[in-house]
Amino acid sequence: MPSSVPAPTFSRTLIPPPMEQPVTGAAGHEPLDERVQEALAITLRGCEELIPQEDWVRKLVRSQATGVPLRIKFGLDPTAPDLHLGHTVVFAKLRQLQDLGHVVIPLIGDFTSMIGDPSGRNSTRPPLTREQIEANAKTYFEQIGLVLDVSRAEVRYNSEWSDPLGARGMIQLAARYTVARMMERDDFGRRFQGGAPISVHEFLYPLMQGYDSVALRADLELGGTDQKFNLLMGRHLQHEYGQEPQCILTMPLLEGLDGVEKMSKSKGNYVGITEPPNTMFAKVLSISDELMWRWYTLLSFRPAAEIARLKAEVEGGRNPMEAKLALAHELTTRFHGAAASRAAEADFRNRAAGGVPDEMPEVSLSGAPLGIGALLRQANLAASGSEALRLVDQGGVRVDGATVGDRGLKLGPGTYVVQVGKRKFARVTLV
Amino acid sequence: MPSSVPAPTFSRTLIPPPMEQPVTGAAGHEPLDERVQEALAITLRGCEELIPQEDWVRKLVRSQATGVPLRIKFGLDPTAPDLHLGHTVVFAKLRQLQDLGHVVIPLIGDFTSMIGDPSGRNSTRPPLTREQIEANAKTYFEQIGLVLDVSRAEVRYNSEWSDPLGARGMIQLAARYTVARMMERDDFGRRFQGGAPISVHEFLYPLMQGYDSVALRADLELGGTDQKFNLLMGRHLQHEYGQEPQCILTMPLLEGLDGVEKMSKSKGNYVGITEPPNTMFAKVLSISDELMWRWYTLLSFRPAAEIARLKAEVEGGRNPMEAKLALAHELTTRFHGAAASRAAEADFRNRAAGGVPDEMPEVSLSGAPLGIGALLRQANLAASGSEALRLVDQGGVRVDGATVGDRGLKLGPGTYVVQVGKRKFARVTLV
Repeated sequence: MPSSVPAPTFSRTLIPPPMEQPVTGAAGHEPLDERVQEALAITLRGCEELIPQEDWVRKLVRSQATGVPLRIKFGLDPTAPDLHLGHTVVFAKLRQLQDLGHVVIPLIGDFTSMIGDPSGRNSTRPPLTREQIEANAKTYFEQIGLVLDVSRAEVRYNSEWSDPLGARGMIQLAARYTVARMMERDDFGRRFQGGAPISVHEFLYPLMQGYDSVALRADLELGGTDQKFNLLMGRHLQHEYGQEPQCILTMPLLEGLDGVEKMSKSKGNYVGITEPPNTMFAKVLSISDELMWRWYTLLSFRPAAEIARLKAEVEGGRNPMEAKLALAHELTTRFHGAAASRAAEADFRNRAAGGVPDEMPEVSLSGAPLGIGALLRQANLAASGSEALRLVDQGGVRVDGATVGDRGLKLGPGTYVVQVGKRKFARVTLV
Repeated sequence: MPSSVPAPTFSRTLIPPPMEQPVTGAAGHEPLDERVQEALAITLRGCEELIPQEDWVRKLVRSQATGVPLRIKFGLDPTAPDLHLGHTVVFAKLRQLQDLGHVVIPLIGDFTSMIGDPSGRNSTRPPLTREQIEANAKTYFEQIGLVLDVSRAEVRYNSEWSDPLGARGMIQLAARYTVARMMERDDFGRRFQGGAPISVHEFLYPLMQGYDSVALRADLELGGTDQKFNLLMGRHLQHEYGQEPQCILTMPLLEGLDGVEKMSKSKGNYVGITEPPNTMFAKVLSISDELMWRWYTLLSFRPAAEIARLKAEVEGGRNPMEAKLALAHELTTRFHGAAASRAAEADFRNRAAGGVPDEMPEVSLSGAPLGIGALLRQANLAASGSEALRLVDQGGVRVDGATVGDRGLKLGPGTYVVQVGKRKFARVTLV
């Protein structure tokens, strides 16, 4: 691949113009072919921005005319992956584009990952070894593979062309962008104005990312809204290197379970894609009706028309819970299969009816016979012994389905289903 | 050499502290050794700034105690050299430090020269080939060799360690400096504020220059006042890489013949070091008395005490022309030898007495017999034929010493000394 990267040209234009030649004589003047129209609609569904749309239409028209698929880049940071549904919004879009016949290129940013954060400020970014990167990539693809068809994707590592750039290539690349335009990136501008340090190497990373698009001859790059600056850099550098610039497609960040904040691990409003099916199913059912339609748009593979029909039915009086169950099934099936999804629904209904769930934490304790207060505390069902006894007094504790009335209860060796309130369960084995 | 460059360490300090341990227990507390005092005085003579002076004293003391010479770096841009006396101010200082026993390292910046100006904005900086660089370096050293003892110098090329840095090393290097501190460089700050573009790669060049000091383990770097920022970068990066930081010594820009503007080719107020001895000698004699003492300080190899004595004599009534003749002899002898310098004085006195100079342009013309007007114009002694005739009318033209009175004079084949006014001469061979 490095040998196919074009030699530097020394153009001075910093703002890439739109593509010059119309790909077909007719594009934009005659009504669009139906299949191109459909492909455009699929591209646009749920997206934040498609820039520039007219170039994307030209690329779609050309691809259809020539049969040559378009090349769609998506950058992955090969840190230890632990994905939630929010991350899969982009993968869902890539899958839709893949189903239109285009080539999806998951690009693993191993080059910079092997460097880490050389300023040493960010201790959460130690340099990764080649082995760690490959192990992370494997885990990543195991997870992504539930959304994307990885076997049809062109997986690439950017060290392939970044290392051969050398010190000279890096200087030549850095000559293709100005400091002033770099400062237009929100965080750089803010930090510079605010006196927060920006290391010079931070200016090199967007350039490297943009150069990846040159090396890959990408037609489209996907990313989150926060990536817009870096995505546009690819467009700029392709123009500088004499290539047809890529289009960029930004996807919004998914709202979490609360419907307000963006989904994130640290906010606790997430659905992890490796969470057990029962948890996943129940979490999807817990979202608001409004958020449900948003998730349909961004996460479901159902055609937009079908979703519109469903929404109309709900507006016409159909129980929204039916639509929510359908979404929970689609997502749980995607990550755990149909059987697990059906079992999750049964489990949900059982719990809703006050029954005992299929899945619960397994806890092993020693010290039998053990008082109920100590047991609840040691099984993490109560924060302290005194809280545990208060819960008993309130009638909120059950052992094997029977409400505990006696603070003095001691349990001997054996296995018990212990329940606190409606939702907290543990299967406690006491020895 | 690249193998001896230390591996990156990830220190976060951006401001190098002064050297920590005193090199001798006594430095700074006991009176300085006489030889150290003399070395310090020689270092300081005519300089703009020595930063920090106390570190330089420590280095001198240690060098004297251990017998290990200090390493003195000076960067050269290997463009086609055509040096004037102004350029030799730094070489004169290097020669003085060399005479103190230290190692002078002329560093040829071939790495960046082979890149040229990749932004394409500066058409006067095309990339140079290895052959051009070596040819330029050879010419450079032929010229510098008249001031420095090149045979005792350690000539280096910075591609030796810059290329092996690679793309990764460049990123790691760039992580060691912030954008905000880069903007403290006068020209960057001004251009950024004024909206003039700065290409990102321009931030990499000072870092590369600073890294040269790390690779060379320099103790001192010399440069012009305008280089101060880049010289301090070497100090900063050596600290970052765990080395004892270099000191920096800036020399002022030499005033040209007019005593006002800095010496430069484009201002015409220069003395080129390859100019003919008679021209050089006469130009030095043409400077003001005040400028003469400045040139003595910055260009002469005479000890400061001797110059002070001479100055006192002139102030006591001695003819300043004698001091000026001595300076003209020192400089002309340096670049052309003693015999040529003596001949130049004779030529100067001859011309001052109205005589014909030894050296003058040789011009060959065809078309004999040729009218005096055409001859003057073709020999570049008059701007036009009509100006030539006016000069004849004014009695300002001589051929072989005789004033020309006749506009209609035609000269046949032969060689003539043609003079216009007091100063313009040519030896014209007409066929």
